[in-house]
Amino acid sequence: MSGIAQTLKPPYYAVIFTSERTEGTQGYGEMAEEMVKLASIQPGFLGVESAREGLGITVSYWESLEAIQKWKQNERHLIAQSKGKSEWYLRYKTRICKVERDYGFEATNTK
Amino acid sequence: MSGIAQTLKPPYYAVIFTSERTEGTQGYGEMAEEMVKLASIQPGFLGVESAREGLGITVSYWESLEAIQKWKQNERHLIAQSKGKSEWYLRYKTRICKVERDYGFEATNTK
Repeated sequence: MSGIAQTLKPPYYAVIFTSERTEGTQGYGEMAEEMVKLASIQPGFLGVESAREGLGITVSYWESLEAIQKWKQNERHLIAQSKGKSEWYLRYKTRICKVERDYGFEATNTK
Repeated sequence: MSGIAQTLKPPYYAVIFTSERTEGTQGYGEMAEEMVKLASIQPGFLGVESAREGLGITVSYWESLEAIQKWKQNERHLIAQSKGKSEWYLRYKTRICKVERDYGFEATNTK
C-alpha cells in the first residue's frame, strides 16, 4: 500500500481526499488501516496512494463512479466518516475525478 | 502552500503527481520550491497540495487542460523535469484528471 498505485489504462476514476487532522488520535490509526483494507476488497477498487506531512493526501482509484458511490455508502465506511467529522478531522476536501490521461517514469540505472 | 487548496466550483482539472525519490538530494529542495512558486503564477493555476511520507504526492489544480499543457512546456519546468528523471526520482506517475465533483467539511467546534 506504500508505493505508486498500479492502475488501468485511462479512463478510470480518482478520489482525492485532502485533510487536516485534529490532535485527537484515539482509534484513528486502526480505523485508517481498516478502511484501506476494506476499500481494497470493494468491487471496482484499483489502488490507493497516501502520504501525510501535516496535510494528509489520500488518493484512491476506481473503475467507475458507481464503485465510488457504493464505497461511500459502505456501512463501516459510514461509521468512519462520522467519526472523522466528530473526532479526527479539522477540515477535509474530497474531489471526485475522471483520470483522462496518465504517464510514468521508471529509472533504469541504479542511482 | 501547506493547506487544502481553495479551488473553484467544478469542473476544473487536477494533476496528481506521485513519486518515489532517489537518495540524491542535491538541488532538489530549491528546485521543488522554485517550481511551486513558478506554477503559482501561471495562467489558470488554482492551487497545489503536497505531502511526502516515503511516497510523495503533489496535486496541482488548474482551470483547463490548456493551462496544464502550457505549464508542462514551461522552460524552467522542462529543466526540472529533466533533472527529475536523471537525478531525483526512482519512479513517478502523472495523472491528468477532470474534477467532476467536490465537497468539504470544516469543524465548527474546537477540538
